[in-house]
Amino acid sequence: MLEELKEKVLQANLELPQRDLVILTWGNVSGIDRNSGYVVIKPSGVVYEELTLESLPVVDLEGNVVEGTLRPSSDTETHLQLYKAFPDIGGIVHTHSSWGVRWAQAGRSIPTYGTTHADYFNDKIPCTRDMTEREINNNYEYNTGKVIVESFENLNPLNIPGILVKEHGPFNWGEDPMDAVDNAMVMEEIASSAYYTEQLSGEKGSINPYLLEKHFSRKHGENAYYGQY
Amino acid sequence: MLEELKEKVLQANLELPQRDLVILTWGNVSGIDRNSGYVVIKPSGVVYEELTLESLPVVDLEGNVVEGTLRPSSDTETHLQLYKAFPDIGGIVHTHSSWGVRWAQAGRSIPTYGTTHADYFNDKIPCTRDMTEREINNNYEYNTGKVIVESFENLNPLNIPGILVKEHGPFNWGEDPMDAVDNAMVMEEIASSAYYTEQLSGEKGSINPYLLEKHFSRKHGENAYYGQY
Amino acid sequence: MLEELKEKVLQANLELPQRDLVILTWGNVSGIDRNSGYVVIKPSGVVYEELTLESLPVVDLEGNVVEGTLRPSSDTETHLQLYKAFPDIGGIVHTHSSWGVRWAQAGRSIPTYGTTHADYFNDKIPCTRDMTEREINNNYEYNTGKVIVESFENLNPLNIPGILVKEHGPFNWGEDPMDAVDNAMVMEEIASSAYYTEQLSGEKGSINPYLLEKHFSRKHGENAYYGQY
Amino acid sequence: MLEELKEKVLQANLELPQRDLVILTWGNVSGIDRNSGYVVIKPSGVVYEELTLESLPVVDLEGNVVEGTLRPSSDTETHLQLYKAFPDIGGIVHTHSSWGVRWAQAGRSIPTYGTTHADYFNDKIPCTRDMTEREINNNYEYNTGKVIVESFENLNPLNIPGILVKEHGPFNWGEDPMDAVDNAMVMEEIASSAYYTEQLSGEKGSINPYLLEKHFSRKHGENAYYGQY
Repeated sequence: MLEELKEKVLQANLELPQRDLVILTWGNVSGIDRNSGYVVIKPSGVVYEELTLESLPVVDLEGNVVEGTLRPSSDTETHLQLYKAFPDIGGIVHTHSSWGVRWAQAGRSIPTYGTTHADYFNDKIPCTRDMTEREINNNYEYNTGKVIVESFENLNPLNIPGILVKEHGPFNWGEDPMDAVDNAMVMEEIASSAYYTEQLSGEKGSINPYLLEKHFSRKHGENAYYGQY
Repeated sequence: MLEELKEKVLQANLELPQRDLVILTWGNVSGIDRNSGYVVIKPSGVVYEELTLESLPVVDLEGNVVEGTLRPSSDTETHLQLYKAFPDIGGIVHTHSSWGVRWAQAGRSIPTYGTTHADYFNDKIPCTRDMTEREINNNYEYNTGKVIVESFENLNPLNIPGILVKEHGPFNWGEDPMDAVDNAMVMEEIASSAYYTEQLSGEKGSINPYLLEKHFSRKHGENAYYGQY
Repeated sequence: MLEELKEKVLQANLELPQRDLVILTWGNVSGIDRNSGYVVIKPSGVVYEELTLESLPVVDLEGNVVEGTLRPSSDTETHLQLYKAFPDIGGIVHTHSSWGVRWAQAGRSIPTYGTTHADYFNDKIPCTRDMTEREINNNYEYNTGKVIVESFENLNPLNIPGILVKEHGPFNWGEDPMDAVDNAMVMEEIASSAYYTEQLSGEKGSINPYLLEKHFSRKHGENAYYGQY
Repeated sequence: MLEELKEKVLQANLELPQRDLVILTWGNVSGIDRNSGYVVIKPSGVVYEELTLESLPVVDLEGNVVEGTLRPSSDTETHLQLYKAFPDIGGIVHTHSSWGVRWAQAGRSIPTYGTTHADYFNDKIPCTRDMTEREINNNYEYNTGKVIVESFENLNPLNIPGILVKEHGPFNWGEDPMDAVDNAMVMEEIASSAYYTEQLSGEKGSINPYLLEKHFSRKHGENAYYGQY
């Protein structure tokens, strides 16, 4: 089932090592079929070069495996919470990419220091709150999803397609699995750039708000004029 | 028309990902034919691997498309302002390359800390002023060109073939499209080197002015003796 | 003899340049056959592209060459001390990898700043004490092993599969030679991440101890659920 | 003439871009035939992919071209001063490699922070003094050689096979051209490592002098035991 979605999820997972977002097995991509509510996701602990269409487990939104013989990613429950809370997203990626992890370990949101940021995220990229002992020891992956969703209570996840889980690392999403991977790669570049900007001139305020709005809207707004028709 | 120029513009655009100056579609190169006043430029939002000679739009200096079916780069208006103001340049490149963006976000000019800088730029590399709300909301790309040109009121653009647009990123130019890309790559190396120099020994003054002049002139002066005859 | 082990040691050594853990001849991997007590190790000063199964010396735990014509790694005596003191390890790697050397030169242990660290090491990664003049001038490589073992007096080497030798560089180990190389690569990533975390937010305490325990145990504990069955 | 030396000089030059020591034409390697006193060197401004055996100029120690049609490197005069002053060296390399330039621009010698340094350089790597206006404006490249030689008045160039020319970049040498390139690559790694060491723990004294001596002598001393017989 869901052969087309599996193909997309496979290709998006294979991009992770290609784009230097993972080493070993440090990342997973999933995609959702909104009609059936089924999610295709990377199997746990399998190296990317051994991934095949057949190896990809299919789970429902409650986490039951509905197809496949391999155990799904240990982060599956987090993905499912995001698909439930963010009805417009079609793909999710989690990695331990270098720059995302560095900011997540620092426990800091990534400030809006330039137009590269504004081209993809129309506000700072949030970092989640600390999880409690109880949240860690019981349903850890479910609760990881919960603290992400909490952070977006007053935010539009399509305008800020990613977050840092504190002391852990980045989650990103998008219209489909590859779009999520694009956003993960962009967030990595933004994170490194913000680091060096601070080293060069200290922590500072957001860029000019008109410039922020201009760049986000010329790519994503109603009257966007970036790209072809 | 302009098949030879299109070939140069195509090759120069293809160098951007090869030289790690762009990811995704984050950069564009143009070239001008000074006889006709026509400019060949990358189409907006097209990935580099899909660029062909036929895909390259040709525009006049007022921004009218005179050949091609694809929409030209959203930064076209900025390129045109530079071609009008700097009559001796033949190619322009804009990217969101890592180090250029970092300094641009910091809002700092790049000081002249060594002979590598002096081999290509005979003074610091300027950073533009803040743009006003009005300049951002009306004819943004035109005004981006305007603030670049303003910075060169008392400078020779051939002696300083590049600039940082504040909170945005680098623009570079040169005799032809590939020369502009060479200057972009050099500026990236200079920008990283200046950063680490400051980390090692603090912000400091320019290098010995005789050394600055010596290195620039042995490569670019009347009695240059670098390279072959 | 020990053809299977030699194959593993050869492959693990060849991974060192592939994974950017060494330049020139700056690293060596060994493996032990616990039945015979024999150790297969890289020959000293031989470039990786010239390594063959036949070129690998076999030594006993006293350092006597029992097979092979090439001189074993100058660090062999250090490897042997670790095999004697840590009976559960099957492979060892020593390199001068960039980030390990930087922390070793700083003389600092690597703090536990995130879940990436916790996935592989359940405590900080220790740095050895200074060696004395006497220890350096007499049986230097033996004494290097001794100070490593000292650091693990109250620690389980399987829970912390690596260490920094002060002013020198990293040693890592694992179940077999390739597992040791995996741990070396992971430690390199952890070391870089910890550096940037401190630059972003200053030196800080360990991550939430529940989170540390959760991540280590979901991968390595009795009820581990990462990976396949 | 000197076909064997030309082959060595060609191969060593071709390694510069392979080892990420240069971009564009930013480096040159030479080699000397001590019998004839003739030096083979890279031609000025020629890209590496176009270098051939025939393209390499041969010069005598006074700088006269004795074979070849291309102009020798603009840095030839500096190479010649080093060959005259250091009779035991057989090859020289100059680049604008990233880390060497960063320290040179900072005007700092590279401290001895670890055994990787000690394996190749038995003391800090010096940085030259400022050159005077007169030295820059008259026979600049000759005087660059002169200030390098000055720095070695009380030092053995074989024990410290390289230097930083202030505000400029690194020069390295060795027994032959490839050995010089190896030393240039090692110095680059040492320079980056020293930078991060200082960021992690501040500027500090040299490593334990016994450790410094131990590592240098086990590789280069009379009783060296690193490598094969």
